[in-house]
Amino acid sequence: MNKPHRVTVYEVGPRDGLQNLARFVPTDTKVDFINALSAAGLPAVEATSFVAPKSIPQLSDAGEVMAQIKRPEGVRFPALVPNSLGVDLALAAGVEEVAIFIAASETFNRSNLNASIAESIECFRSVAERVREHEGRLRGYIATAFGCPYQGEVEMGTVMRLTGDLFKLGCTEVSIGDTIGTADPDQVGCMVELLGTEFDLSTIALHLHDTYGRGLANALTGLNAGIVVFDAAAGGLGGCPYAPGASGNLATEDLVAMLHQLGIETGVDLPALVEASSRLAEVTGLQPPSRALAALTRCEPVLA
Amino acid sequence: MNKPHRVTVYEVGPRDGLQNLARFVPTDTKVDFINALSAAGLPAVEATSFVAPKSIPQLSDAGEVMAQIKRPEGVRFPALVPNSLGVDLALAAGVEEVAIFIAASETFNRSNLNASIAESIECFRSVAERVREHEGRLRGYIATAFGCPYQGEVEMGTVMRLTGDLFKLGCTEVSIGDTIGTADPDQVGCMVELLGTEFDLSTIALHLHDTYGRGLANALTGLNAGIVVFDAAAGGLGGCPYAPGASGNLATEDLVAMLHQLGIETGVDLPALVEASSRLAEVTGLQPPSRALAALTRCEPVLA
Repeated sequence: MNKPHRVTVYEVGPRDGLQNLARFVPTDTKVDFINALSAAGLPAVEATSFVAPKSIPQLSDAGEVMAQIKRPEGVRFPALVPNSLGVDLALAAGVEEVAIFIAASETFNRSNLNASIAESIECFRSVAERVREHEGRLRGYIATAFGCPYQGEVEMGTVMRLTGDLFKLGCTEVSIGDTIGTADPDQVGCMVELLGTEFDLSTIALHLHDTYGRGLANALTGLNAGIVVFDAAAGGLGGCPYAPGASGNLATEDLVAMLHQLGIETGVDLPALVEASSRLAEVTGLQPPSRALAALTRCEPVLA
Repeated sequence: MNKPHRVTVYEVGPRDGLQNLARFVPTDTKVDFINALSAAGLPAVEATSFVAPKSIPQLSDAGEVMAQIKRPEGVRFPALVPNSLGVDLALAAGVEEVAIFIAASETFNRSNLNASIAESIECFRSVAERVREHEGRLRGYIATAFGCPYQGEVEMGTVMRLTGDLFKLGCTEVSIGDTIGTADPDQVGCMVELLGTEFDLSTIALHLHDTYGRGLANALTGLNAGIVVFDAAAGGLGGCPYAPGASGNLATEDLVAMLHQLGIETGVDLPALVEASSRLAEVTGLQPPSRALAALTRCEPVLA
């Protein structure tokens, strides 16, 4: 097995997880959650999204969240922005890393961003410009890179082209997303191999979902193919395009537990991470779908 | 990726799944479940266990179940037996394939079978003899092959020795069990590689659990290493040594969905399998933990 010494876990729970909940999680709870995640050693915690409160009321407190969280030296706290208005608000709130988002599927891009892919890239030019002026960092997401809920198949060539476009815009990291969790290990392996022919794989992240239970199988394949950055959400929260409560993002606990057992460093204190997710679950009444979280918070084995 | 053309899925839900429930599932419901599983194309459905009703009251109707299920040509319906008494009952009930069970951990074997490993092997000699007299088939399980909840680590050498012992007893298939779901892909890869040095890998099954979400990652590794028989439980039911409701066996739906997407045949009709698990869930009120089952029974995507 091809194993890196260390993997970077990019935590998306506070943004991708909480934005998909039906309810609004109070600002204090969000801030406590983010503080607990950075204290647990996560090197990057995507904190919020500066979107129109009408579109995503769950994250309407983006400015307060950024103002209130602790920001330990060396930890990244990126925020997602959909457009120029968002980037101004984000930069004004002290965001140092901005994440932008396009889909590899025209249908999905239109439905989520109300624009064609080409229009989105155009719109992000001014966002990138503003980030550059502030000497900030830019991260790109490509959603539905392995399949789209509307149009089905997505061309790998489109993903390659968009990855190039995002790097040209100034992104230092591009995250390739299996938004609906339909990717299989073959697809992940082929995609990463192809990406590696044109791009430095250390600048490519995989953003996997566990919709069909293949999150870790796909992560393992990505790892073997040379990926060293993985997005994951504490507790496995959110990110699911289907019914609420459904399994969403690859759970940070599941990922970290497997990586550590494989002898790969992450810098994450797993018990502290479990504590962070457990506390969020307790305060909000959520039932996070992470398998490892459930196993590690259970009592001693009681065998028949 | 090293991919076989076809994989045999050995269904353990009716036995390993239902024996771990707190409640007794009515015989009719069990029979309907088993019939639905064989009708869905599963080539082997472990139907029940001939154990002392005091030990496992959930399966106290083993004889009735065997008498009432449909037995389509070519489908295996093995039953587990713990001892000579069990095998007599099983053979009298028309069982044609008997499964026997030992643990690779002394502590676990004592706690589950009330005997040392050596005593268990001794005890199974007469079981094997009776099966041979009836021209039946014998399957062996090795539990806790990757780790034990009581003693922690388990020697790979012990697993090798016991695998040899079970083949010597007359087993035609030996299933290597990650009973507590702590195995990682490295462990699985090493174990399968070692087993392949002494045994024909087509006679070795992997019995994986999804306790930490690694079920499919471990299955993928096994597949790559040459395993072509996998145990799984419809809905991902049961088999968990921890609290009830916890994630248990690798879910048949998750396994079959991944295999089919990888272009590997199983002979299983996935929608029919989903229907079988859904009906069981509906009738019993259970909430099966399978990710794929949840995804495939959800309505159309409703994206933000």
